[in-house]
Amino acid sequence: MMQDTPLSQLIKRLSRLPGLGPRSAQRAALHLLRHRDTQMMQLAMELEQVARQYKSCNTCGNLDLHDICSICSDNRRDAKRICVLEDIADLWAMERAGIFSGHYHILGGTLNALDGIGPEDLGISKLITRIEQVTSSLATPQQLEIILATSATVDGQTTAHYIAERLKSMPVQISRLAHGVPVGGEVNYLDDGTLAQAMKARTRL
Amino acid sequence: MMQDTPLSQLIKRLSRLPGLGPRSAQRAALHLLRHRDTQMMQLAMELEQVARQYKSCNTCGNLDLHDICSICSDNRRDAKRICVLEDIADLWAMERAGIFSGHYHILGGTLNALDGIGPEDLGISKLITRIEQVTSSLATPQQLEIILATSATVDGQTTAHYIAERLKSMPVQISRLAHGVPVGGEVNYLDDGTLAQAMKARTRL
Repeated sequence: MMQDTPLSQLIKRLSRLPGLGPRSAQRAALHLLRHRDTQMMQLAMELEQVARQYKSCNTCGNLDLHDICSICSDNRRDAKRICVLEDIADLWAMERAGIFSGHYHILGGTLNALDGIGPEDLGISKLITRIEQVTSSLATPQQLEIILATSATVDGQTTAHYIAERLKSMPVQISRLAHGVPVGGEVNYLDDGTLAQAMKARTRL
Repeated sequence: MMQDTPLSQLIKRLSRLPGLGPRSAQRAALHLLRHRDTQMMQLAMELEQVARQYKSCNTCGNLDLHDICSICSDNRRDAKRICVLEDIADLWAMERAGIFSGHYHILGGTLNALDGIGPEDLGISKLITRIEQVTSSLATPQQLEIILATSATVDGQTTAHYIAERLKSMPVQISRLAHGVPVGGEVNYLDDGTLAQAMKARTRL
């Protein structure tokens, strides 16, 4: 086995990516080396470009080529709706689905006492400052809706509850995503929690 | 969803790596962007370096910084043993185990009629030329041992049989890896094929 060669260092770095282990990093490196000119050089260039060009949006935490991202600066979007998400991948999922035309706020994670992630790590004061700024610019601040769209996991729900608690005194509407049977889901495969929520929130036909 | 931005292109390229799908490529890209300075720039640099510096060894097909690889040019290694492997990852596994001190020959795959991979794609004539060269330099060509260490899959075994057939007329010894119970393996979990081979090749205590 090659010790501390450039190739072994590359494999070590690839193996630190989420979703890749030592074996798959080896396979990926060999695959790249087999396509040195068409793939590997391109990948190197693209990585370098993206690392250099992309910035975190100061307002919402999205990643974009500009400091105020294309979503925050888009006048056609509804500034009276802010959807609070855990991660940028969640934002991509929302945009892919094309179901929301408001603004976003990326927390960058969830509250987790074990991992030592507290409200300050998620920039929740920044979210509150942002909400204050938006409400002060509105004639009727009650128009502003904050949609808490964290995951339906224990950590995600804890985070949503914490934020809802912090926003209680503010003159805004707070909502969360509905729970229920996922589209295409079979009832007999659903967990009890989902089933209970789906029953509780049943709608009249 | 971002259409055709540098980031979406990077994700598309990452998703083509073996072991990564579209979702894990997204996660990997976000992970890299979160560690832009410590990880992403380094990865770009290392990829570019490895792509530029590494060459295929003209003799055995190994990848190394030099055209004749460090294994082929190592005088301490036994030139009278050539271990034929499918892939460079197999060479790494051999070297990691430290169980073989001869030379290698990388086929770069296996024969596969469905995928249209024939003997010429694996450079089998190159292997034969190499064997002829080695035998002509030996006082007794019978000293040269060719170890067929392709995988114990259908394709791997087909390839080994094909090579053995091609080498039959040459004055060399041909061997293959033993089949049997893997170390740590439980008999009641073994497949019939392995069990049959292990029984057939049983050794006297």
